[in-house]
Amino acid sequence: MNLVAEHNEIIDEAQMANAIRALAMDAVEAAKSGHPGMPMGMADAATVLFNRFVKIDPTQPNWPDRDRFVLSAGHGSMLLYALHHLLGFQDMSMDQLRRFRQLGSRTAGHPEFGHAAGIETTTGPLGQGIATAVGMALSERMLNARFGDELVDHHTYVIAGDGCLMEGISHEAIDLAGHLGLGRLIVLWDDNQITIDGPTSLSTSLDQKARFAAAGWHVVAVDGHDREAVAKTIAEAQADPRPSLVACRTIIGFGAPNKQGTSATHGAPLGKEEVAAARESLGWIYPPFEVPEEIVHAWRVIGARGTRIRAEWQERLARSPQQEEFVAHLAPPDAARLHAALADHRRRLCGERPKVATRKGSELALEVVNSTIPNMVGGSADLTGSNNTRTKGMHPVTRADFTGNYIHYGVREHGMAAAMNGISLHGGLRPYGGTFLAFADYCRPAIRLSALMGRPVIYVMTHDSIGLGEDGPTHQPVEHLASLRAMPNVYVFRPADAVETAEAWEVALVAAKTPSVLCLSRQDLPTLRTEHGDENMTARGAYLLRDPGASRDLTLIATGSEVVVAVEAADRLAADGLAVAVVSAPCWELFAAQEADYRASVLGEAPRVGVEAGVALGWAEWLGSNSSFVGMTGFGASGPAADLYNHFGITAERVAAEGWRLARKPGEEHK
Amino acid sequence: MNLVAEHNEIIDEAQMANAIRALAMDAVEAAKSGHPGMPMGMADAATVLFNRFVKIDPTQPNWPDRDRFVLSAGHGSMLLYALHHLLGFQDMSMDQLRRFRQLGSRTAGHPEFGHAAGIETTTGPLGQGIATAVGMALSERMLNARFGDELVDHHTYVIAGDGCLMEGISHEAIDLAGHLGLGRLIVLWDDNQITIDGPTSLSTSLDQKARFAAAGWHVVAVDGHDREAVAKTIAEAQADPRPSLVACRTIIGFGAPNKQGTSATHGAPLGKEEVAAARESLGWIYPPFEVPEEIVHAWRVIGARGTRIRAEWQERLARSPQQEEFVAHLAPPDAARLHAALADHRRRLCGERPKVATRKGSELALEVVNSTIPNMVGGSADLTGSNNTRTKGMHPVTRADFTGNYIHYGVREHGMAAAMNGISLHGGLRPYGGTFLAFADYCRPAIRLSALMGRPVIYVMTHDSIGLGEDGPTHQPVEHLASLRAMPNVYVFRPADAVETAEAWEVALVAAKTPSVLCLSRQDLPTLRTEHGDENMTARGAYLLRDPGASRDLTLIATGSEVVVAVEAADRLAADGLAVAVVSAPCWELFAAQEADYRASVLGEAPRVGVEAGVALGWAEWLGSNSSFVGMTGFGASGPAADLYNHFGITAERVAAEGWRLARKPGEEHK
Repeated sequence: MNLVAEHNEIIDEAQMANAIRALAMDAVEAAKSGHPGMPMGMADAATVLFNRFVKIDPTQPNWPDRDRFVLSAGHGSMLLYALHHLLGFQDMSMDQLRRFRQLGSRTAGHPEFGHAAGIETTTGPLGQGIATAVGMALSERMLNARFGDELVDHHTYVIAGDGCLMEGISHEAIDLAGHLGLGRLIVLWDDNQITIDGPTSLSTSLDQKARFAAAGWHVVAVDGHDREAVAKTIAEAQADPRPSLVACRTIIGFGAPNKQGTSATHGAPLGKEEVAAARESLGWIYPPFEVPEEIVHAWRVIGARGTRIRAEWQERLARSPQQEEFVAHLAPPDAARLHAALADHRRRLCGERPKVATRKGSELALEVVNSTIPNMVGGSADLTGSNNTRTKGMHPVTRADFTGNYIHYGVREHGMAAAMNGISLHGGLRPYGGTFLAFADYCRPAIRLSALMGRPVIYVMTHDSIGLGEDGPTHQPVEHLASLRAMPNVYVFRPADAVETAEAWEVALVAAKTPSVLCLSRQDLPTLRTEHGDENMTARGAYLLRDPGASRDLTLIATGSEVVVAVEAADRLAADGLAVAVVSAPCWELFAAQEADYRASVLGEAPRVGVEAGVALGWAEWLGSNSSFVGMTGFGASGPAADLYNHFGITAERVAAEGWRLARKPGEEHK
Repeated sequence: MNLVAEHNEIIDEAQMANAIRALAMDAVEAAKSGHPGMPMGMADAATVLFNRFVKIDPTQPNWPDRDRFVLSAGHGSMLLYALHHLLGFQDMSMDQLRRFRQLGSRTAGHPEFGHAAGIETTTGPLGQGIATAVGMALSERMLNARFGDELVDHHTYVIAGDGCLMEGISHEAIDLAGHLGLGRLIVLWDDNQITIDGPTSLSTSLDQKARFAAAGWHVVAVDGHDREAVAKTIAEAQADPRPSLVACRTIIGFGAPNKQGTSATHGAPLGKEEVAAARESLGWIYPPFEVPEEIVHAWRVIGARGTRIRAEWQERLARSPQQEEFVAHLAPPDAARLHAALADHRRRLCGERPKVATRKGSELALEVVNSTIPNMVGGSADLTGSNNTRTKGMHPVTRADFTGNYIHYGVREHGMAAAMNGISLHGGLRPYGGTFLAFADYCRPAIRLSALMGRPVIYVMTHDSIGLGEDGPTHQPVEHLASLRAMPNVYVFRPADAVETAEAWEVALVAAKTPSVLCLSRQDLPTLRTEHGDENMTARGAYLLRDPGASRDLTLIATGSEVVVAVEAADRLAADGLAVAVVSAPCWELFAAQEADYRASVLGEAPRVGVEAGVALGWAEWLGSNSSFVGMTGFGASGPAADLYNHFGITAERVAAEGWRLARKPGEEHK
């Protein structure tokens, strides 16, 4: 849909683009840091894109059927901030541009989701934007399949740089988008042939266009400074049923006469003289941070158009028989209903006491979740049967049928995680996806963005320790619990049985601004939990699974598959006359957030032994001085799980021995 | 070079291949776990590859000029173990095959470097093998440029599966290999159209051959069960100057009549009946774990051929005027010479006391290192000027000239790290490479393999905290120190000044089996260190930078850029009458390895305050109960570095206040 006919065609897009260039170079100059080259190079293409194509309403930046625009080359943030200012976003005043890259401003060095209206996703780590956009474009098609063109009919536009397309994640994203035929995804590649180190020829000889074509994309190349040609190619891209790459050959730093076309414009201020020369060369006669009224007006017309389109959409929504369902899709899950359904489920488990792997427990919980929450979207990075992520009645999304609710992400952990961020950011669907915990490393940069952006994406990560057995140390996480706990704003759950697993799912789903990683066992585990009324004990982070009462001799603290080890050790020690508490600690972050009194009552004053089939890092905080830790001190090994637990000494016998050593009363011997 | 003419052509390669198939299915059956499908599918291609092309000497598996063979699809480990057994590797007895996937056997679930002779690299995490092989192939060309065809003239062969080629890292590897024109790299793609979840059509529509061609590769497709055709394509691949993809269309689980061609053969035993049916179908009449003499003999002929070729090479080496230099390249660095050079350098620094960023300190140290060690190979993932990794006189490697010693890895952190693993594994060169510390996440799976394999790769990771300033939270590591410390067998260095940085380089270079991550500041830091004679204090992990003598009131422990914060706090508190020790702790892992007495003398008995611009995870171990930690509690922000330090409260003032609170004597007030 080329919207230019609705626009005042007298306006000179060249001057509209120059406004972006001037604001970008001025803001970088004021900040004494930043990246002027990309905004100056892509100003023409971005102007055409917004002037003629993008539907966006600055007065309601979160309108559900807006086009999504992702600046994957996030270092060019001034392009986005300039656009938002010129379009009339209320929170993007000229003063914000003046305070580019200053503490407390909305104009952070890289675009940060939540810092200013209309920033669709946080970018800067290269490749994340394009991969996140794939999730957005997928959401659009899935919601379109549910709600039709009347309610869901928008594009996802991306500006990506050479760096984005060099990163491996771009391969996963491009392949997935091509496979699913996400025709509403249009990527403008800023083909400026420059990276930080110099010309791209230093490090790549790839035929980028052939590469995208190989992945099933529509590909078209254009002079990125020829605005009419850019418009024509974007229109072609819209018409093509495949996702589109528009390769825009540009000059980085366009307009800076002495530096343009070189890496000198990439990541540093142009300098006072070159800025003056650029003004001269561009014919931009206005002082810094000033844009003449008529150019501002031309930009504001775009916003007004968007406001009208949005109002029309709102009328359609009001008339739609699906209004209620659509609104429900956008809302958080019904927490009370979810709690009731999962509490029932937990009661059943406490009665039946199944011995199942927590990955199976997760599947059991998901059966309840997926029949309670209508907009769950599951998936796995090619480990569906191992991650137990596909419940009865789910069916896969394909390019021919987007009504499904399960994504075969392929062997693409990173692409999956970024796509889930995109699904979450888009709104309307709740994503979860599975892989092995060891491969959390493969998607860590995208998990970090879930956390930084506060998106409640749910990572189902099975095979969570040496307990996976024969696949050996490459597949056995030993440091991953610690490394994920190190990341701010992530709930790392390691449930001990199917009951705790169901509880973890509830917390993860109700969390508004925190992603969750569910670390689940491959091996079967007994149901250890008895009922606690309706209370979700996992929401406490840690709790007394076995409480010996007032006079405690020893506290054993464990997580996940090692809780049963601690329980067995406690039984042995109880037989020896010790009063032993067992603390199950499925989520440290939630426990740390409890009140001090509660924490103290759980941890007690007695000596402590920690048990976890992972490295010790981080445990000292919970164990204190008179304590011991039973876990891993290095990488795992290949062998049957039981052999490995014995080999690495993670046994009830050893825990009991450590506990006895710490808690023994003088003169008594351990039997 | 087709070596088949030297071979007994009467031998039936079909039976040689069936020997692999039988051993693979028998071993998986015995282990009750494993992946029979891939070895059975690729047995024909692998037989042709080894029988007619690979030069390998089972009696000297580490012979420098051997061909490298990387099983990137590492789950098919039985292919490799069967090959090694049949070729006559002494440590790969039939008993080892019987004990496949058992604890203590050499036949781990996935091939583990160091567990058995001839395993060139650890594989299993998909995509790592092919990306590591790029480093091996690059090493070959670089050493060839130095030593000529007489001494260095071999191929790197890879078997990769669909999963390897879906992973993002494969994009980085393929692009880099194509760019550098690594013509000695030949990848056999096991194009069996099956992944774990089912047919590849579930998740990909990529034209893999077009994709490789776009990256500048020679591409040829073949029926992977047509051995003559496979031989012809490998010969073509050898002749082509570009890296080659040989797309082998195969049937996964070839020979298992009821399961072949399906994902049922991928990752589970075939079952007794299907194994029997496969024997029938293949005409393999021998009992489990038995291979008839004449087939064993046919395989052993390959080894004998390799032994002869190796002996000829050894004669060439003995006659070569470059013998001494070649042997020196393969040896570890001259530790005494390195120590002397760097000790001189440190003395100069202690005299001159420069105020420079530790990334600059690293460059200063590297100037010394690179002029002392002849086989250093530097590089950066497109951040050369920011990582300060290129010293004077280094010149880049290009496809036209492999005499250089600097690699422009492009925006490919993961590909870089894996390539460095390959360079390190190949032998002959010592790799280091740079990126920002925040992007350690992008290459974490490859760092993990450095650690697991015990390869002393050196990661130069600059911009190590909020101290990088305006780029904001996406670029500011806060959890990365903790997450890297969590990983076994990694030295995480965070030096406080140029002196400690030089010391860290020395330890990293002398380490035989441990990779190092050097976490370096963007911002300038004063030289804090005075001389300690010649002793490398960083090798101690932590040490008393300021020692108040016997009666200590307080200990401040800090790393990197926060050591100067601790020193300033100590100065304030000293003015208030407290005896304050300052501990610089540049490497926790080395400190943990010191004797208990030394650790106790450093940490002292007084209350402690820890200071680090990162999260607290892990600090409790060093701080004990009467302590405080000053650092980050969440993600960073965009702004000038000084503003951020104030905003997050990582200041001498706050450290002093915390210290005073903990150490104050009754009745005294903090001024």
